[in-house]
Amino acid sequence: MEAGGRRDAAAVCSLLFLCLGCFHVIALKPQLFRLGASPLPSETPISYETLYFDQKIDHFGFVEDGTFKQRYLVADKYWKQPGGPILFYTGNEGDIAWFCNNTGFMWEIAEELGAMLVFAEHRYYGESLPFGQDSHNDNKNLNFLTSEQALADYAVLIDNLKRTLPGAQHSPVIAIGGSYGGMLSAWLRMKYPHSVVGALASSAPIWQFSGMVPCGDFYKVVTQDFARSGYNCDGNIRKSWKAINNISSTVSGLQWMSEEFSLCAPLKNKNDVGIFKNWLQETWTNLAMVDYPYEANFLQPLPRWPIQVVCKFLSFDSAVSDYQLLQAVSQAAKVYYNYTGITSCLNTSQTATGSLGFLGWFYQACTEMAMPMCTDGVQDMFEAEDWNFQAFSDECNAMFGVRPRADWAGVVYGGKDLASHSNIIFSNGGLDPWSAGGVSYNITDSLVSILIPEGAHHLDLRYSHDLDPPSVRAARLLEVKYFREWIKQAKTNTTT
Amino acid sequence: MEAGGRRDAAAVCSLLFLCLGCFHVIALKPQLFRLGASPLPSETPISYETLYFDQKIDHFGFVEDGTFKQRYLVADKYWKQPGGPILFYTGNEGDIAWFCNNTGFMWEIAEELGAMLVFAEHRYYGESLPFGQDSHNDNKNLNFLTSEQALADYAVLIDNLKRTLPGAQHSPVIAIGGSYGGMLSAWLRMKYPHSVVGALASSAPIWQFSGMVPCGDFYKVVTQDFARSGYNCDGNIRKSWKAINNISSTVSGLQWMSEEFSLCAPLKNKNDVGIFKNWLQETWTNLAMVDYPYEANFLQPLPRWPIQVVCKFLSFDSAVSDYQLLQAVSQAAKVYYNYTGITSCLNTSQTATGSLGFLGWFYQACTEMAMPMCTDGVQDMFEAEDWNFQAFSDECNAMFGVRPRADWAGVVYGGKDLASHSNIIFSNGGLDPWSAGGVSYNITDSLVSILIPEGAHHLDLRYSHDLDPPSVRAARLLEVKYFREWIKQAKTNTTT
Repeated sequence: MEAGGRRDAAAVCSLLFLCLGCFHVIALKPQLFRLGASPLPSETPISYETLYFDQKIDHFGFVEDGTFKQRYLVADKYWKQPGGPILFYTGNEGDIAWFCNNTGFMWEIAEELGAMLVFAEHRYYGESLPFGQDSHNDNKNLNFLTSEQALADYAVLIDNLKRTLPGAQHSPVIAIGGSYGGMLSAWLRMKYPHSVVGALASSAPIWQFSGMVPCGDFYKVVTQDFARSGYNCDGNIRKSWKAINNISSTVSGLQWMSEEFSLCAPLKNKNDVGIFKNWLQETWTNLAMVDYPYEANFLQPLPRWPIQVVCKFLSFDSAVSDYQLLQAVSQAAKVYYNYTGITSCLNTSQTATGSLGFLGWFYQACTEMAMPMCTDGVQDMFEAEDWNFQAFSDECNAMFGVRPRADWAGVVYGGKDLASHSNIIFSNGGLDPWSAGGVSYNITDSLVSILIPEGAHHLDLRYSHDLDPPSVRAARLLEVKYFREWIKQAKTNTTT
Repeated sequence: MEAGGRRDAAAVCSLLFLCLGCFHVIALKPQLFRLGASPLPSETPISYETLYFDQKIDHFGFVEDGTFKQRYLVADKYWKQPGGPILFYTGNEGDIAWFCNNTGFMWEIAEELGAMLVFAEHRYYGESLPFGQDSHNDNKNLNFLTSEQALADYAVLIDNLKRTLPGAQHSPVIAIGGSYGGMLSAWLRMKYPHSVVGALASSAPIWQFSGMVPCGDFYKVVTQDFARSGYNCDGNIRKSWKAINNISSTVSGLQWMSEEFSLCAPLKNKNDVGIFKNWLQETWTNLAMVDYPYEANFLQPLPRWPIQVVCKFLSFDSAVSDYQLLQAVSQAAKVYYNYTGITSCLNTSQTATGSLGFLGWFYQACTEMAMPMCTDGVQDMFEAEDWNFQAFSDECNAMFGVRPRADWAGVVYGGKDLASHSNIIFSNGGLDPWSAGGVSYNITDSLVSILIPEGAHHLDLRYSHDLDPPSVRAARLLEVKYFREWIKQAKTNTTT
């Protein structure tokens, strides 16, 4: 029974694990949209037009000849036509309006570049649903949810804009994206270099695939963030898992933990405890992603340098009782979940809801985007867990009736052999766990890496802020410098 | 009735027209394989191993998770391992063994380059049938017949060879192909530059798509070939269509024509005459494709410079009777159909059989590979016919239940905007009508055009011959020079 219980917990764990690898899907859950303040600084009103484009549901087959309405947002206030550049946001796994509002960088540079802004929604997210509300019903309807189809959407849309928008025919287009959207930006330049003259791939883990980087690097970065943010902060979290196991071994312990963590649903058994631990692991991971130098509301409303705030509760020698340790962990977790003070209870199933963004990304993770992750409890602060591709594949099959293809991403996107491409900036934040799967060195003169040591997840794409560290200010300047070079190159090519 | 009759003829015409644009599918008809001498010079025995690789039926979706056996041929007699180059033939629309036997150039340079030869069969042709004998049954089974799927097959196969063949890990791979296979070579380098260090795209009309080149250029080249091969040869063919219309307007005329041309099935009505005229147009076009400087058997067993032989019958002033003119046309056509003297009758439905290669290419032409062609009867020697995309699309829909996407090839493969790619040779023959849709100038220092003025369809890929013109000898030398450069580049990249 014990072994069986372990296996069940592990199975759930692996599915939640997906969620740990789900970029900011977490942020796309409807309830989070309603939380706290607007993600936009109120002093920066933005204005755009919402448009829809008829895209083929299947670019790579002809039997399914239907179309769907792809949403895209256009802001052309500063566009200098004819020929002014187009900054094209390659939407990722969520509502494009939300990404539009969270990509202040584009809004801030539009005027100086005389650029039009276009934000294109990724198919199967937001309003861009190939089969309407049935889009995520089954694997048949989900079959056209791939990065290749999304890239083709972007290429077709760009082609159409250039052919139909007066003044856009010779406009150089620059792809910009963050996280999975950054991967799409880089891949768009690689696969459709005639569509975009260059790409900014911010915090894009294009190497977080089988055989490209060690599976444990991601959680090492998370751990380092906590280690540097408070005395023994990582050590106490590393110790907390055993404390949870100890205390949760009795009914009264389960009850105490449920109360201490103000859980909405009390822990009842080992399975619940497994979910609870994954939820905590995800909490620390999300904090690492959004460890911004100022108060912000990306995944949650949070104070500036939130890990430092969290670690204030966890900076002590580990020679405390399990109960004392978990009390501290509880206070730390509530920094993330209740900074606003209005949360009445914490919901450990929060990351396992069936919202659209989730299902879509789960499907992608179960097909092309299977990203190996593992922990060893030594170089990271988590319980040891190997990457088990077969178990993962079996879960995907049970959930969607599909199996991931471990090697496909490497074959289709080239893995580490990218030198023949050009004009891509890979920016990564030193605090961001996703930097572990990113391009961290210059591959060639025009495939360049920009490191932002004090940056969390795509900090460079956010609005500038008084508290921005110098490294991100420099990164943004350099990015614009490259944009100008690409635009100049394109103009030279057009006139010759 | 008259108008209706015209429409019927035009409808058939357009389908045959497809065939005029079917590269050497014509050569793939089983009966042609049995004709005449072996396509291989008997003094050049070649030897290869036939292997099969499990390919995913659908690389771009996950519901169809089945595999099929892709055939590929390997010759490693001269391969210098570890690290010797691999010359990878990107199979086109037919049996790979036939292409293997007709690509002597690769066999002739294997030793000097220390290269392994791999000939990969294109899905849905030869033995590489995703659904076995049912592969062409309906549009559902045909749905995975696209160039993107074929390119993915090649990339996956190359990845597998490099990972599993001892000594191949660092082997630079060069893609080589002719005609549609040449398009695939170029596109493989464009889309998967990590797979192949360069590509030779011989006689590859990558611009024979909507909006890229004038639709009439193809038949202008055919006409020029006849104009230069005998006095008034093109003029007499131009005049022949009216003569056919005149004579076929009576029952006795139909009978006379049927006998004069030794037709297997006598012409009975206007519809038959439409088919007959298309068959003749295709005959002249095929002759232009295979106007080789020596006796050869590519599409048919033919004498050296066959158009000159054909034109011997058509070199006279046009002031002859319709009957005299058609007698000459008949003798000329028989050069193509009966050079061996063993053909008892000519079959005008020859190009409309339902053989595999045909159906597969028809489907491709009806989906991605819709290539606009037109004639005006002034700059070419054919009856005037506009390109009518809608009519073509309707026929495709009636035949397969699919419709071509006119702009897709341009969006997915970049049209004329290729400058950011590298290491592709586009070779074209001046006699080859497909050169009209080919790359005829250097785009950059590493996207180069090689023109072979005296060359027909991918002459450079054929075995060398004593009667080869100097231009094709020079082309082959230059091609090998580029291969060596690419191999050197790759070795430098591997060691740095």
